Amino acid sequence: MTTLTREHCLALDRDDTLRHLREQFALPEGVIYLDGNSLGARPRAAAERAAAVVAEEWGDGLIRSWNSAGWFELPQRLGNKLAPLVGAGQDEVVVTDTTSINLFKVLAAALRVQASRDPARKVIVSESSNFPTDLYIAQGLADLLQQGYSLKLVDSPEQIEAALGADTAVLMVTHVNYKTGEMLDMARLTALAHAKGALAVWDLCHSAGAVPVDLAAAGADYAIGCTYKYLNGGPGSPAFVWVAPGLRDAFWQPLSGWWGHAAPFAMEPGYRPRSGVARYLCGTQPITSMALVECGLDIYAQTDMQALRAKSLQLTDLFITLVETRCGHHPLELITPREHGRRGSQVSFAHPDGYAVMANLIDRGVIGDYREPRIARFGFTPLYTSFTEVWDAVEVLRDVLDSGSYRDARFQIRSTVT
Amino acid sequence: MTTLTREHCLALDRDDTLRHLREQFALPEGVIYLDGNSLGARPRAAAERAAAVVAEEWGDGLIRSWNSAGWFELPQRLGNKLAPLVGAGQDEVVVTDTTSINLFKVLAAALRVQASRDPARKVIVSESSNFPTDLYIAQGLADLLQQGYSLKLVDSPEQIEAALGADTAVLMVTHVNYKTGEMLDMARLTALAHAKGALAVWDLCHSAGAVPVDLAAAGADYAIGCTYKYLNGGPGSPAFVWVAPGLRDAFWQPLSGWWGHAAPFAMEPGYRPRSGVARYLCGTQPITSMALVECGLDIYAQTDMQALRAKSLQLTDLFITLVETRCGHHPLELITPREHGRRGSQVSFAHPDGYAVMANLIDRGVIGDYREPRIARFGFTPLYTSFTEVWDAVEVLRDVLDSGSYRDARFQIRSTVT
Repeated sequence: MTTLTREHCLALDRDDTLRHLREQFALPEGVIYLDGNSLGARPRAAAERAAAVVAEEWGDGLIRSWNSAGWFELPQRLGNKLAPLVGAGQDEVVVTDTTSINLFKVLAAALRVQASRDPARKVIVSESSNFPTDLYIAQGLADLLQQGYSLKLVDSPEQIEAALGADTAVLMVTHVNYKTGEMLDMARLTALAHAKGALAVWDLCHSAGAVPVDLAAAGADYAIGCTYKYLNGGPGSPAFVWVAPGLRDAFWQPLSGWWGHAAPFAMEPGYRPRSGVARYLCGTQPITSMALVECGLDIYAQTDMQALRAKSLQLTDLFITLVETRCGHHPLELITPREHGRRGSQVSFAHPDGYAVMANLIDRGVIGDYREPRIARFGFTPLYTSFTEVWDAVEVLRDVLDSGSYRDARFQIRSTVT
Repeated sequence: MTTLTREHCLALDRDDTLRHLREQFALPEGVIYLDGNSLGARPRAAAERAAAVVAEEWGDGLIRSWNSAGWFELPQRLGNKLAPLVGAGQDEVVVTDTTSINLFKVLAAALRVQASRDPARKVIVSESSNFPTDLYIAQGLADLLQQGYSLKLVDSPEQIEAALGADTAVLMVTHVNYKTGEMLDMARLTALAHAKGALAVWDLCHSAGAVPVDLAAAGADYAIGCTYKYLNGGPGSPAFVWVAPGLRDAFWQPLSGWWGHAAPFAMEPGYRPRSGVARYLCGTQPITSMALVECGLDIYAQTDMQALRAKSLQLTDLFITLVETRCGHHPLELITPREHGRRGSQVSFAHPDGYAVMANLIDRGVIGDYREPRIARFGFTPLYTSFTEVWDAVEVLRDVLDSGSYRDARFQIRSTVT
């Protein structure tokens, strides 16, 4: 640890067995991109694919492309490519709609399952630091249902066990926390939920493609997640949904649109759900955005999550060590767990002037992002992030902090930051 | 009417003041496209726009494009471009999600408004011939809410008035019927609904961009619709939602995701809706698909709905006349109203072997579509459909019917048809 130098990082890159994967991404010059946990970088193949979808499939194929270009099967085809990354089987995942919408579907289905088992279970348990939109969706559903449904929040993962009780319908948690980068123990928490009679809904937004996930082994009940972060599907690309085999055909989900109908072209006035996870489809999907998801998934097919995880931990270990050794004289507080088993693929540091520090970094071409309160967040994508970039990013951070350049007024002005 | 010839149609095209608009579309060779009511044709500009979004905004801009490329404002910006086409004001429309999802939002909001006014109103009235996904969504919502909520279907528009009663919460109707092409009287039915204490929800999927719509003048309460049919937004491009000013801030809609939050980047655990129609936003949107919507809307900005309506009626009149005069000896039954005031921008004919006839037409390059039962459906898009194409399409239809070629086995095999 004492001999860390840029040359050492260059050597790590030379020895990196995944380094060829970076060539499949189009990364802009002059940028060190450490925000793939917010929006993944563009696979080179996406440009050609977008052109083909727009010019050939839409322009020339027109309506015929629903069959000839396979649009109608796209949610399942992409779901099957994604499934191995989260420990799901074939025909168990569909890519569709948004994470928030898919969460609404699975929460509603889970509550309905519980209503049939034990009508007294009306509480959704989650963490107050869960990604806010997940909490908003749970609130929206509880508010819609009335009849005593509610959301109960705990302030740390350690409090989850005590919060689960005879009134708990669902434990709704995010596997890797968006802010801290802390990874929860999916198998343990799912078992806890089941032991208390609750169902477990997992948000995989910050874990699909970032860490190994095994939904089946964990015994999870429902999972949802996005494709535009680590999976590199493109801005706002459609999300995914997985339901455990035993629950899949248990109930309809309430967003029962034509694409989830058993006979979508029979134009029947009555809804009949398709069997399997395809009943979680609803309306017509944004084909151009959806088609690009495949470009990201095809890169994952060239490697495996174990190799990616090993490099991810190397990258985050290196970043933590370099920040602490080279910027240790500044008031930076590591928010992310040091323990490998509790860490996702991002590292967060709190700094009293975190917003301005991040704004200054971005201005210098080191792109991470900021999260309230005071948190500078850095995502590491082993598919394209190099060890030398980690070194260089920390050097820019050190210069920003040592020089105090972040105190410049232009870095203090808050704008929309996503 | 007796002297209709191809030369006459060529003359109509020469005199067509809208004919220059066709050049803005990339239509494939050898095709007469009469299915713009299912998937609109591709604006030429869409190819360049898609390339820019993928290469520059996503690839180079990365996360910064949320601000620098205006992604965060896209739902409102597109909504404002769309608004004049449906008689909505500025900041009254957002483009987001799918028609089905948006219908769920507005139905839930409408039911909540009614629950606060008169809890006895729990029935959604609609037509059995309404677009099936609309009925499925209403069923899904009623099934989720339980507590006596239900969907009541009438078999024809004439029966709507009698169906509205003291238990009616919402009248949910589609302005132009997807199958028959019949256009309902929005102002009259909305007034009827209001007189009976109900709110009126309008589906504009087959009318936005197809016929003049004036939501404000009609006094409508909620409207939703898609952008991928007449508006030429691209396959599955995001839909739109409009809410009458007096109802907009009345209640939350239950799909309460981050994008509809009053302070989306404050990351608060509690949901607070934005004011205005922006609270109907939910999760992260498919930016590539959404951005292309603008290409279609920009073509509409070069003309007006009155000119388009005049040409649309000329096209549908011509088609009806030609089919009836040149194919009149075949068992074709006009399903679409002859009366201009009751006709959208499509013409449907029933034929005992409608599926095979349409399959044969598509094979010959005349692309319409088929809808159960027995209906061959032809959409006319005044932005790009020419009078000569109408002539040529009818000639192909005549040949298909006269020759009996549609009886060939390959046209009888049912495949997925959208």
